[in-house]
Amino acid sequence: MCDRIRNAGMHDRMMSAEQAAALIKPGMTVAMSGFTGAGYPKAVPQALAARMEAAAAAGSPFRIKVLTGASTAPELDGALAKANGMELRLPYQSDPALRERINSGEIDYIDMHLSHVAQHTWSGYFGKIDLAVVEVAGILEDGRLVPSSSVGNNKTWLEQADQVILEVNAFQPAGLEGMHDIYYGTALPPERKPIPLTAPDERIGEAYLHVDPAKVVAVVTTDAPDRNSPFTAPDEASRSIAVHLLDFFGHEIKRGRLGRNLLPLQSGVGNIANAVLAALSEGGYEGLTAYTEVIQDGMLDLIRTGVLKMASATSFSLSAAGVQEFKDNIDFYRTRILLRTQEISNHPELIRRLGVLAMNGMIEADIYGNVNSTHIAGSKVMNGIGGSGDFARNGSISIFMSPSTAKNGGLSSIVPMVSHVDHTEHDTMIIVTEQGLADLRGLAPKQRAQLIIDRCAHPLYRPMLQDYYDRARRESYGQHSPHLLAEALSWHDRFVETGTMHTFPTINQPSRSPDSGLPELPGSLLGT
Amino acid sequence: MCDRIRNAGMHDRMMSAEQAAALIKPGMTVAMSGFTGAGYPKAVPQALAARMEAAAAAGSPFRIKVLTGASTAPELDGALAKANGMELRLPYQSDPALRERINSGEIDYIDMHLSHVAQHTWSGYFGKIDLAVVEVAGILEDGRLVPSSSVGNNKTWLEQADQVILEVNAFQPAGLEGMHDIYYGTALPPERKPIPLTAPDERIGEAYLHVDPAKVVAVVTTDAPDRNSPFTAPDEASRSIAVHLLDFFGHEIKRGRLGRNLLPLQSGVGNIANAVLAALSEGGYEGLTAYTEVIQDGMLDLIRTGVLKMASATSFSLSAAGVQEFKDNIDFYRTRILLRTQEISNHPELIRRLGVLAMNGMIEADIYGNVNSTHIAGSKVMNGIGGSGDFARNGSISIFMSPSTAKNGGLSSIVPMVSHVDHTEHDTMIIVTEQGLADLRGLAPKQRAQLIIDRCAHPLYRPMLQDYYDRARRESYGQHSPHLLAEALSWHDRFVETGTMHTFPTINQPSRSPDSGLPELPGSLLGT
Repeated sequence: MCDRIRNAGMHDRMMSAEQAAALIKPGMTVAMSGFTGAGYPKAVPQALAARMEAAAAAGSPFRIKVLTGASTAPELDGALAKANGMELRLPYQSDPALRERINSGEIDYIDMHLSHVAQHTWSGYFGKIDLAVVEVAGILEDGRLVPSSSVGNNKTWLEQADQVILEVNAFQPAGLEGMHDIYYGTALPPERKPIPLTAPDERIGEAYLHVDPAKVVAVVTTDAPDRNSPFTAPDEASRSIAVHLLDFFGHEIKRGRLGRNLLPLQSGVGNIANAVLAALSEGGYEGLTAYTEVIQDGMLDLIRTGVLKMASATSFSLSAAGVQEFKDNIDFYRTRILLRTQEISNHPELIRRLGVLAMNGMIEADIYGNVNSTHIAGSKVMNGIGGSGDFARNGSISIFMSPSTAKNGGLSSIVPMVSHVDHTEHDTMIIVTEQGLADLRGLAPKQRAQLIIDRCAHPLYRPMLQDYYDRARRESYGQHSPHLLAEALSWHDRFVETGTMHTFPTINQPSRSPDSGLPELPGSLLGT
Repeated sequence: MCDRIRNAGMHDRMMSAEQAAALIKPGMTVAMSGFTGAGYPKAVPQALAARMEAAAAAGSPFRIKVLTGASTAPELDGALAKANGMELRLPYQSDPALRERINSGEIDYIDMHLSHVAQHTWSGYFGKIDLAVVEVAGILEDGRLVPSSSVGNNKTWLEQADQVILEVNAFQPAGLEGMHDIYYGTALPPERKPIPLTAPDERIGEAYLHVDPAKVVAVVTTDAPDRNSPFTAPDEASRSIAVHLLDFFGHEIKRGRLGRNLLPLQSGVGNIANAVLAALSEGGYEGLTAYTEVIQDGMLDLIRTGVLKMASATSFSLSAAGVQEFKDNIDFYRTRILLRTQEISNHPELIRRLGVLAMNGMIEADIYGNVNSTHIAGSKVMNGIGGSGDFARNGSISIFMSPSTAKNGGLSSIVPMVSHVDHTEHDTMIIVTEQGLADLRGLAPKQRAQLIIDRCAHPLYRPMLQDYYDRARRESYGQHSPHLLAEALSWHDRFVETGTMHTFPTINQPSRSPDSGLPELPGSLLGT
């Protein structure tokens, strides 16, 4: 471990995870590293969860507030949720145990734009940060930190927390050193200056994180892999979505609205994202760039083959095979990947300037182009908005993708009115399902509605949508965005009651009651 | 007029409004100047409307697509709407005749962020711009144009239109010359660079608009005032809202989260905005700045007294008395006001950097903080989103304000679920009514719900909201954002059916049926 912890002063603070976890007190606000299952602390949260369970068994509940970069893993969110040790969690999660506690009303969850977390913390909106637990890949002689496989909000956590626990994970490759770009130029207004980034491959910061050594109260060593996200090979629906999207890119190139190198890509993880990346590769593209949150297996492939000349992100999210590929060729990847803080990877100024092509999954869209990325039936949260709003709102083309149905046909991803809005009609440009692509740019609401019904809806639901829309065209109070309010959310209500949105329920035979579990997350939402 | 039209080549193209209007053909896409009733063309649209009416009378409908900066005036939107001469209109409107045509389904209306109009035009999303009609205050010897009382999208219209008609309005003060800052550095990605503005009072452009003289097909002279917006003195509800907001600012200053100079202010027009500005003046503030869309009477007052040291905007919206005050002291105001293009006044990069305090009106908010700025009962559009999304999404504090009821108590501005979402729960920080202020920062959905009910709802509706929320806490499918979907929009439905959202209808005796007209626009929405 001495090659990873080269600062002499830090050696004195080395202790076990249990000793470190004992520094965390009930009621504390604790900021942790971690983004899409990478770079999260692996030992202290589990030791903390054990303390919490013991405390609960002894009749004195032990709960804290937990802030992270984004989703973490069973060792953090899962363990603390099972111990019922969180009273508040932000900003993004994907852990089943945590989600269940949130949706049962036991944990307060703040679902916010990932680009907002750092500035809201600096502004004090979450109160004082008592303690940070941050995984790093190493500590230099001078005390600077080699960041791990994600950066997330770590710069902010290290600066804002009163006390810091460092987990030094020897499993993370030493070759990560030099792959990060930590920008120390952000500020609160009125002190903000232009952020001098004009291309995804530019470096504007330094390779290390800083921490005031006086704040470091514990150093814990670990040697454990990140949560490995299994690579999901594209299914037929995802491949169809990718074909529609690639057709669209080809069309934009022909019209001179996109160059052959496209614009910097943002893409989530999962089935659809993998299909889109594979299609780009097959489509003969090369020299592309990515300005995104997460590097997944598909992106490594594209970097290896030159389809992507580089990728800027804030985190990895790799399968075990992807981790091996990365480790085996880390010198190659180190010159082609930059990991930044999430306030920079998701910064509205930079996403707008670069003109990012924002490709995000969704749960459902309505006929006017409002998009729900977070809620099932208006009240249960799935994962969270993640960075989808940061990219969709400020990117040059905002694309939302989903299979047209889920739950064996019981859910339509095109509905009369979404049950929750995360992206408004003013921000959505392209809707894609395996049925087709609707280009909403330059269209008024009624034009959008007919196009979405015709192009994106599943044939099982298309007649029901057309019927709703036709009646709304006749009977709605107003004819700007025709709606039948008494019926607009009835599809979701029917799903909750019967397990299907369809009025002809025999088409769907759900294998379990709707309350027994949430529908699968559509393809490419972040951090599945 | 020769002192206003100093370029010799332009003299040859002088003609009557009727002759100029004859250059506009059915089906054309025509971009016009104008923003909140200032700087719009005053003669050509009326002459065009006369042609349209004659054509319709002769059995051959004459309709065009109309793009503007924002709202205009009866001479433009009113005249063309009455002539049924528009098939499409964007991006913001407030004309009663136009609104009626939109809500009857006769005109397609694209309601979009004002910051997006220029880039979407450059990207070709609205097709080719056949012709621009732009009011200016004068033409220099070298052909450069002195902008008028609004800038809006004029830079883009002059650059993108195939042909240009200039209206030179001698009523606009010659002293406007030098008050504008037209930035010619924007581009489409991947050519975008940082925009070098770091404070509201910085100049980054030039004082004049450019036009290719070869494109100017007509020069029309006018001598007419802008639509004068009558100054509305704050009523009691508006004054209460202002008191709550000033309390909040004071609280933020005490906590060290805002300086005594606050941060650059963005504010709409109308009753509430005037009340807030008056309260700032009475509150002893000085040396403030504004980075906003519109300079209204209240802002002139604040500049005169030094409460505001300067204001950056894209337009004026003054009463007749305000125009006189401005004209009488134009040399004073010219050094304290900058008018920019609306892509700069509303630019996400700049609003975020400056940390603008975004103060916007709303139609309704729901208990989770989703805000509806545009729709009545989900289907009728009021005015449009204007710049509220640009400022709320990127400003440092996003504030939405409304009286807690409208229509003589028949409408509650706090509802279980909004009937249309323009600003999501992820973007709303402060809700203010005359009842009180809810600070939603750092709160999870259920915390927000109780606070909004307690602080913002009118006592007439508070028990109904509490009852809905209490039952949702027990019966909702999920407990992250508890909702009863079958009931969530029932308040709006009841309003449409009975004229009141209340279940005890005798509290409200609407003076007219709900279909006979739209409710009054809440206070400070843009361009009333």
